[in-house]
Amino acid sequence: MRSWPGSSAKGGLRGTLYLLGLTYQGFGALFLGFAFLALALGEDVRGFALAALLGLGLGRAFQALGHPEAQPRRAEVFASVALLWLAVPLLGAVPYWVSGGLGYLDALFEAVSGFTTTGATVLSDFGSFGRSLFLWRSFTQWMGGIGIVLLFLVVFPQLQVAGRQAFFAEATGVEKEKLTPRLRHTAQAVLRVYLLLTASAFLAYLGTGVPAFEAWANALATTPAGGFSPNPQSFAAYPPLAQWMGTFFMFWAGVNFLLQYRLLFGREARPLLGDAEFRAYAALVLAASGLLAFYLYTHHLYGLEESLRHGFFQVVSILTTTGFASVDFAGWVVPAQAILVLLMFVGGSAGSGAGGVKVVRWLLLFGFLRREITRTLHPQAVLPLRLGQRVIPEEALRQVSVFVFLYTLLFTAGTLLLALLEGDFVVAFTASAQAIGNIGPGLGEVGPMGSYAGLHPLSKAVLILLMWAGRIEILPVALLLSPELWRRLR
Amino acid sequence: MRSWPGSSAKGGLRGTLYLLGLTYQGFGALFLGFAFLALALGEDVRGFALAALLGLGLGRAFQALGHPEAQPRRAEVFASVALLWLAVPLLGAVPYWVSGGLGYLDALFEAVSGFTTTGATVLSDFGSFGRSLFLWRSFTQWMGGIGIVLLFLVVFPQLQVAGRQAFFAEATGVEKEKLTPRLRHTAQAVLRVYLLLTASAFLAYLGTGVPAFEAWANALATTPAGGFSPNPQSFAAYPPLAQWMGTFFMFWAGVNFLLQYRLLFGREARPLLGDAEFRAYAALVLAASGLLAFYLYTHHLYGLEESLRHGFFQVVSILTTTGFASVDFAGWVVPAQAILVLLMFVGGSAGSGAGGVKVVRWLLLFGFLRREITRTLHPQAVLPLRLGQRVIPEEALRQVSVFVFLYTLLFTAGTLLLALLEGDFVVAFTASAQAIGNIGPGLGEVGPMGSYAGLHPLSKAVLILLMWAGRIEILPVALLLSPELWRRLR
Ligand SMILES: [K+]
Ligand SMILES: [K+]
Repeated sequence: MRSWPGSSAKGGLRGTLYLLGLTYQGFGALFLGFAFLALALGEDVRGFALAALLGLGLGRAFQALGHPEAQPRRAEVFASVALLWLAVPLLGAVPYWVSGGLGYLDALFEAVSGFTTTGATVLSDFGSFGRSLFLWRSFTQWMGGIGIVLLFLVVFPQLQVAGRQAFFAEATGVEKEKLTPRLRHTAQAVLRVYLLLTASAFLAYLGTGVPAFEAWANALATTPAGGFSPNPQSFAAYPPLAQWMGTFFMFWAGVNFLLQYRLLFGREARPLLGDAEFRAYAALVLAASGLLAFYLYTHHLYGLEESLRHGFFQVVSILTTTGFASVDFAGWVVPAQAILVLLMFVGGSAGSGAGGVKVVRWLLLFGFLRREITRTLHPQAVLPLRLGQRVIPEEALRQVSVFVFLYTLLFTAGTLLLALLEGDFVVAFTASAQAIGNIGPGLGEVGPMGSYAGLHPLSKAVLILLMWAGRIEILPVALLLSPELWRRLR
Repeated sequence: MRSWPGSSAKGGLRGTLYLLGLTYQGFGALFLGFAFLALALGEDVRGFALAALLGLGLGRAFQALGHPEAQPRRAEVFASVALLWLAVPLLGAVPYWVSGGLGYLDALFEAVSGFTTTGATVLSDFGSFGRSLFLWRSFTQWMGGIGIVLLFLVVFPQLQVAGRQAFFAEATGVEKEKLTPRLRHTAQAVLRVYLLLTASAFLAYLGTGVPAFEAWANALATTPAGGFSPNPQSFAAYPPLAQWMGTFFMFWAGVNFLLQYRLLFGREARPLLGDAEFRAYAALVLAASGLLAFYLYTHHLYGLEESLRHGFFQVVSILTTTGFASVDFAGWVVPAQAILVLLMFVGGSAGSGAGGVKVVRWLLLFGFLRREITRTLHPQAVLPLRLGQRVIPEEALRQVSVFVFLYTLLFTAGTLLLALLEGDFVVAFTASAQAIGNIGPGLGEVGPMGSYAGLHPLSKAVLILLMWAGRIEILPVALLLSPELWRRLR
């Protein structure tokens, strides 16, 4: 228990504070840019101006109070990640609050929903937001998405967190030994794919009839699997071909960016096509879309193309946790909705911006269960678990179990609290599921054409916590509740 | 992989067949008794007579085709358990089918619901059953309950199934080393408690105003946490004091029978009062009942005593997976219902007739999660997990994880299928949860005063499978799906 290296006095919290100071100043500068944009568009500039002032001022103060940490330890990194992912939206909510006509809790909900790439909105009157606010809203998702991907592909793998490093290395094809020297390369690769996908989506949307501003905002919200749209009808407002384009780019937003890099920039298709997670993901998309299209074709008045289009669009949108809508699926028959609700618990691929449990974890979990059932017949046998050609370490399996349990418990607690507060089981269940999976729409009142505006303030607080915990994969949040961590950080 | 001892030719399946033959003949004799009872009561005797004929005839044939097995192996025991728990209801359904006015699928549903101590009913017209059928219905629960307790306290512990033996020994206070010589003693202890509780419940119900026949049928359904009542209003038909008695005896039906034995016959209170599972169970009853009573008092027109009475009754009824109702809680406000729905996933204590996940598994799971979170800060530390004063083996923790995952997956699959078939999320969710937890009532159409009669035949089949798998704790059913098992049994 005493193996932990002693921390410098107040090192942990001061390191976090220093980092937060730098981050706030960066956002302060960014808000200055947005303030000029608002000015140029003739929109209310006060929100961005205040956010810029707060970011620069508080950031400077935090930097002065804090202290740079050359070698942050595991506990400090986790605490920093958890606190940053809450502190940034606290600042990022200011423009919505001052210029968007939202109360601060609603503004915070919208900001957390953005930075966590959830895309759940409290907007019911889309006219209260100017273009600068909509752009900021989409941009929070774009930054949140790249932030999460870099966090899980570059930052966390360095920590060797009890199998987590190994797991992500296995799952993403990054070799454990070579990881550190390749950090910069990995970050650059991810960023190149991210930029390429964003630019391509913009052009594709523009070319298929989406107005330029909306094409840009939607592209920024597609690549991170975000789902915010400046149009209250989401993709239902666009032509069929634009919807097919949305399906295509959402699909890629849910695929491991490093494997995409090797395909796009290394011209190696085999790492992607041979990847167990990608194959399961693609198979699931085909199977679920087919089943959903069948229900739509037989139960609604859609033609064949329209059934296929909405089937593929909504399956990919929910599976990748993007949350765009090509139609108001809250009005579908229950069996069609049930397929989407089930997919809410699957998620996209590791190493992408998608949230949720993620396909690779389900593969490992099913492999684990299958092995343990076999073990009942062979109690003494050594039964290594493989994924593709890799043997998965037991520690990684334990981490997957812990994650899925924590995810389920948090989701259940959220459902219970929302049921107590809202008095509607379907709203409680789907709002909780979408929040922890960073998806966006639920069913009923909080469906894709609905809004979270009407929920009880405490329900919004619960959803904020779920979005936050789900996005950083719960463990850093669970650690924040551990007295042990605070002793270490003191 | 080849460490398994070679099985005699067709030994496994023939051993199972032999056992089934004996069991069917035993039930044949029992049905003869019920036929005479029906005759004495002037009720339709044909159902019991046919069941007796089938039981004796088929039983004799199975015995002849099978072969006794002196030393059954693990795979054979599991296969036998899974097949017996389905084969017995197949025969037990005959009286409902012939004399109760039910189709065979409905009759099978009622029989499976009985033998698994679930208590979900397809009866909507309680007038179609005579007293002999109601007595048979309660008696299936009584036999199912003692069967399950003996299975998990006496039969399975002998198998040393990958930590399962250790787990149950730990959880039940039975010492591993001394188990085998004490088998007969353990079985007798359980049976004595079971008989004492049943008789006491009968006298208590009778003394508080329940008509004699109903007191007897309800007592038979209380001790196994069964929940079948011959009265369509369940305990809502009885005086307040009888409802409090129901709460009291349901509470004890959810407590480890071996610990009760030491209290009642050994005059040792400490093993029970110091037991981690019992303490958690009692604390949960108090906390949840208080919360529920608060909601009832503030949201419905109940007085204080009535709020407490229904609060305690329903919490204990659902937590112990009994399923009796003191009131139609399907008409309550959603928050009050939400508390009950959450309790559906908790369950009673190991070593009792209660179904569900069980309190001790949740204690182990939360301990495991807590330890793994701490491990993130101390990756190298050895962190043994204790429950009370016992160190829990890692293998037991893995078994708990596997069980909870399989439980959740089966429940989710059931919910999805029912949602597809019924088109109602609340019915799908609660029907699936009550079935795998062997509880009985759900919400909506399948609430405590409702019936499963109106569900789609396929939904009934799904629920039959869930009741069956849940009652024998899934693993034997999962093994039946394993090709490995069938190779072994060939
Ligand atoms: K999203
Ligand atoms: K029951």
